[in-house]
Amino acid sequence: MGAGSARGVRLARTPGSEVSAEDFDLSDMALPDLTDGQVLVRNSWMSVDPYMRLSLPGLPGARAPISVGDVMSGAAVGVVEVSTSPALPVGAMVVSQRGWRDRFVANAAELRKVDPGVGSPSWHLGILGLTGLTAYPGIEFVLQPKAGETIFISGGAGAVGSVACQLARRRGARVLASAGSDEKCAWLVRELGVSAAVNYHSEDLGAFLARECPAGLDCYFDNVGGPTLDAALRAMRPQGRIGLCGAISQYNDDNYRAGPAEFFTIIEKSLAVNGFNAGTPGPRSPEVLAALGDLLKSGELIWKETVVDGLENAPDAFAALFRGENIGKMVVRLA
Amino acid sequence: MGAGSARGVRLARTPGSEVSAEDFDLSDMALPDLTDGQVLVRNSWMSVDPYMRLSLPGLPGARAPISVGDVMSGAAVGVVEVSTSPALPVGAMVVSQRGWRDRFVANAAELRKVDPGVGSPSWHLGILGLTGLTAYPGIEFVLQPKAGETIFISGGAGAVGSVACQLARRRGARVLASAGSDEKCAWLVRELGVSAAVNYHSEDLGAFLARECPAGLDCYFDNVGGPTLDAALRAMRPQGRIGLCGAISQYNDDNYRAGPAEFFTIIEKSLAVNGFNAGTPGPRSPEVLAALGDLLKSGELIWKETVVDGLENAPDAFAALFRGENIGKMVVRLA
Repeated sequence: MGAGSARGVRLARTPGSEVSAEDFDLSDMALPDLTDGQVLVRNSWMSVDPYMRLSLPGLPGARAPISVGDVMSGAAVGVVEVSTSPALPVGAMVVSQRGWRDRFVANAAELRKVDPGVGSPSWHLGILGLTGLTAYPGIEFVLQPKAGETIFISGGAGAVGSVACQLARRRGARVLASAGSDEKCAWLVRELGVSAAVNYHSEDLGAFLARECPAGLDCYFDNVGGPTLDAALRAMRPQGRIGLCGAISQYNDDNYRAGPAEFFTIIEKSLAVNGFNAGTPGPRSPEVLAALGDLLKSGELIWKETVVDGLENAPDAFAALFRGENIGKMVVRLA
Repeated sequence: MGAGSARGVRLARTPGSEVSAEDFDLSDMALPDLTDGQVLVRNSWMSVDPYMRLSLPGLPGARAPISVGDVMSGAAVGVVEVSTSPALPVGAMVVSQRGWRDRFVANAAELRKVDPGVGSPSWHLGILGLTGLTAYPGIEFVLQPKAGETIFISGGAGAVGSVACQLARRRGARVLASAGSDEKCAWLVRELGVSAAVNYHSEDLGAFLARECPAGLDCYFDNVGGPTLDAALRAMRPQGRIGLCGAISQYNDDNYRAGPAEFFTIIEKSLAVNGFNAGTPGPRSPEVLAALGDLLKSGELIWKETVVDGLENAPDAFAALFRGENIGKMVVRLA
């Protein structure tokens, strides 16, 4: 049976020092006929995430699985329109890793069927997907902030950060956060229970941390790297714990792999530094997603999204991540 | 009672990019009369350690407690010659932190009485002092390499490294090590049970690690920092463990606090990185020293020293650390 055509967003050129919407273009492509065990999926939501910057060519040391001319990869959620697979009937909701496309044909086995019952389908791209699988182990497995401890979370108003702030708060810790606007800082304090938030564009991070936690930070959850990581290293107490989740401030930089200026502090203060990512829960992933689902259903966890409409606007939504234009998770909604 | 005079080694000028013997001078100084509870100590051995480089002025970001004109600080072991303290009678062996002097007057309370029974008195400056209190927790508390695992130890023929190699071997791990000469590498393999050692001056570290541990390192014990830390980061397996003990290759560098070029690997591979130092055992220090004493007595642990004679040669012994001229612990013996 003929599947017709689809549209996808391709990488048009190697990005320069700052990724921009002009680095991508929209392309029509023919869809193959379905063979046995395949499905045709129409995407309803697509993910744009900071880590995708490291999939693009041009950064020294990055693996860069995407080449110029390739459709951008990443997670999307959609609905099965045509099926030759009993496992995924028409109408099933699925998560794919096929990236920025409106429709595609794939083997049923490479798709993950998800429950449309909790929240918006887009949640499977965030709190019930990559974001949740990163933020939850970062707080619950790696840093484990305790009552009476103070944790600083950078990028607190981002997708991972906003979940980390709330999980840390639930554990009884005092939460400090950084964000890139007064609006985000107000939201963190008002809605997420953060004790104090700093707009790093307008206030010195070192002064903020010295004022809010003169005894030294017990924990730091790093989403941004760069000067913020250095400020946190200077503010840590001896034997403090740092969780390294991401370094978005560095992802447009040729030198993004390089360590902080204050690295030696790790030795001086006997710090524990742990890297983690969405793969960290490993076999515990179903348990993590179930726990997050329960917190969402009970209203104990707020999940915030910034929605951009239209496949053609995915590149700009992606570039906007690095300008800090999202509150919570940036997602793209398709018509 | 008049205590006479003493000689000490002072910092004569702010060191340049490479510390040298000419940065110090020898000085005569009058000793004060003893008051109640004081002792006059004649040093028999003095310690020179890499960390002392960071006590000197001129390095941006270092605390630099030593100023030009000060006697160099650090550990020494000596014997009480005159005493007004019942706690430390004449003949008692004591460890001080009064640095590079032949004789000094101090309050008994600031000295630690030690047992002359195990090995040479100089051992209290190394395996039964700072060195042991660093190497032991690095292996036994922080990294805990297991049978079947591979650990890479840089600076393997240095004071801390030589102890770490042996402790890791005793736990059943396969030990790889780096050192700065073929002689040191041969000693590591022949005497310390290291499986393979690399002379980093003549062989590429990345090629060595790829050949000796193609499946990836489980643990890395870092004594040197710099390009060796980067090579280890590239060679780590996912979820591997790194213990950061020191960064001697960087201590003559204005930029010594800066992180490795491959820092981002910590996130990509979900590595656990822990800084530690001689303060890490904390209240467990007596237990650590007792365990090391037992291993020395039973012959299960070899303790190697490089001995330089004469107070006046302490500066050169110190500078020689950074040229890698010691095997095991560098110590200075006084007349």
